[in-house]
Amino acid sequence: MAKIRRLVLDVMKPMEPDTTELARSLAKLEGVDGVNIVLVEVDRDVENVKVTVEGPDLDFERIKDLIEDMGGAIHSIDEVVAGSRIVEEVKTPQDD
Amino acid sequence: MAKIRRLVLDVMKPMEPDTTELARSLAKLEGVDGVNIVLVEVDRDVENVKVTVEGPDLDFERIKDLIEDMGGAIHSIDEVVAGSRIVEEVKTPQDD
Amino acid sequence: MAKIRRLVLDVMKPMEPDTTELARSLAKLEGVDGVNIVLVEVDRDVENVKVTVEGPDLDFERIKDLIEDMGGAIHSIDEVVAGSRIVEEVKTPQDD
Amino acid sequence: MAKIRRLVLDVMKPMEPDTTELARSLAKLEGVDGVNIVLVEVDRDVENVKVTVEGPDLDFERIKDLIEDMGGAIHSIDEVVAGSRIVEEVKTPQDD
Amino acid sequence: MAKIRRLVLDVMKPMEPDTTELARSLAKLEGVDGVNIVLVEVDRDVENVKVTVEGPDLDFERIKDLIEDMGGAIHSIDEVVAGSRIVEEVKTPQDD
Amino acid sequence: MAKIRRLVLDVMKPMEPDTTELARSLAKLEGVDGVNIVLVEVDRDVENVKVTVEGPDLDFERIKDLIEDMGGAIHSIDEVVAGSRIVEEVKTPQDD
Amino acid sequence: MAKIRRLVLDVMKPMEPDTTELARSLAKLEGVDGVNIVLVEVDRDVENVKVTVEGPDLDFERIKDLIEDMGGAIHSIDEVVAGSRIVEEVKTPQDD
Repeated sequence: MAKIRRLVLDVMKPMEPDTTELARSLAKLEGVDGVNIVLVEVDRDVENVKVTVEGPDLDFERIKDLIEDMGGAIHSIDEVVAGSRIVEEVKTPQDD
Repeated sequence: MAKIRRLVLDVMKPMEPDTTELARSLAKLEGVDGVNIVLVEVDRDVENVKVTVEGPDLDFERIKDLIEDMGGAIHSIDEVVAGSRIVEEVKTPQDD
Repeated sequence: MAKIRRLVLDVMKPMEPDTTELARSLAKLEGVDGVNIVLVEVDRDVENVKVTVEGPDLDFERIKDLIEDMGGAIHSIDEVVAGSRIVEEVKTPQDD
Repeated sequence: MAKIRRLVLDVMKPMEPDTTELARSLAKLEGVDGVNIVLVEVDRDVENVKVTVEGPDLDFERIKDLIEDMGGAIHSIDEVVAGSRIVEEVKTPQDD
Repeated sequence: MAKIRRLVLDVMKPMEPDTTELARSLAKLEGVDGVNIVLVEVDRDVENVKVTVEGPDLDFERIKDLIEDMGGAIHSIDEVVAGSRIVEEVKTPQDD
Repeated sequence: MAKIRRLVLDVMKPMEPDTTELARSLAKLEGVDGVNIVLVEVDRDVENVKVTVEGPDLDFERIKDLIEDMGGAIHSIDEVVAGSRIVEEVKTPQDD
Repeated sequence: MAKIRRLVLDVMKPMEPDTTELARSLAKLEGVDGVNIVLVEVDRDVENVKVTVEGPDLDFERIKDLIEDMGGAIHSIDEVVAGSRIVEEVKTPQDD
């Protein structure tokens, strides 16, 4: 199967462990180069974050398991990129 | 015939298989370098996604068949690029 | 005469043949490097598309003929670039 | 005198000859590298276009004469750049 | 554990010591390349600032301690990046 | 004294001489690499233009004198850059 | 202590001396590469300007003294960057 190169995930997670720990844990997984987590919204004891993961060979199931092990849940897969190189989303008049 | 270098497709698909599987399947097709799928909208058990495919020689019919085999349907061809190199859309005052 | 390097055309065309075929046909013309077609609007059985053509020596009449042979019509020439290199449109305070 | 490197002209012209012919004629003038013409507005049998001309040594009077010979008129000089290199307009808080 | 490469922190701090001193102190910590502090809002004797820290191996706890030692408090972790390289946040249609 | 590298001037000038002549005259001054003049507004027989001048060693007084000799007046100095290299304006949250 | 690489200061100053003189004086200070001053607002005989200073080793106190010697006052430190390289502010969803 072709390899996954980037995942952008909408994630709901408890306040603890914080995003630095989630980012470091995800970044340790095989096939991951780097992880970017931005805070989207805080709602009492839950925070909505956007997780961008990039690397040569991302394993979606393991990423999903790890997020769930740390108390989080993937709300949606906002972007996935697969193949021999990263292809960016292309804007067209239909997006307006 | 000149080769297709990029396709941007507006696709309606069932929630399963998810976009990671669709992206990996499309990326495996001959002539495809990479596939980018972003989530546009979720409507109960159907999701509207934008699929950007790039490569040296894209076969539109095979891409269409594969999307349909996985339960999806192409709603529109939002962009197509053909020729010896990728030419980007150029904005003009007429677009405003 | 100086050569045409880029044309951006506002085109009305029937749904069939689709834009992948129009793009591949235009890209096969002599002096054309590449063709980008984006969908602007669909109106029952006609679609409004923006066609960007780039190459070292574009022949406007042949491009026009081919579009018409495939059932389309050029509504306007939104941009034309001629000369020894591509010069981009420059924005000035008068455009606001 | 220092040389003119770029001119951006607001031009009113008749529908014929079309902008491809105007662009090719202007691009043939000595000291011109390239010409970009975008359509701004169409008003019955007259069209308002923006003409961007770049080159090592532009002759404004000859460009003006040629536009007038082809039935057009320069409405305003929206930008002019002179000197040993092209200097771009710099945005400052005063422009907002 | 994978290394933290960037932290973007929303910080509330007293007017003194000023942001030049906070920036210089943070920049002296091991594993820090550079620190950027922008002023977001001033509210009588407290100022809200955004602190961007980048480096090969950021120690979040030590950064947190130093900010608190200088009278400040981290209001939220707006972005964290971990792994072998900096991965930027990717915008998707879900952000609009 | 440190050298001036860029000046952005808000200038009111009579319609004649036109901006091509003003640009060529300014570009001939010693220490000037290039001049960019954009039209901001026309008010009967006066036009408001923005003049961007760049070079290794700009002489503000001589630039001011030349503008005045050609019938113009500097309304404001919108940007000045001095030193061993050009430093660009940096946007911060305070600008919004 | 780590070195300051960039300062963005919101400054109120008298109309004279003008910003060209302030820029040249600041640019002459040791450790300064360049200075950019943009005009934000004029209020009768006082003008609000944004001063961006960059260099390998900025001395905030000396910069502050010089601005005050020339009749000005620092209203706020809008950005400060310290460390071994310039780190830019990073936008996150929290800024919107």
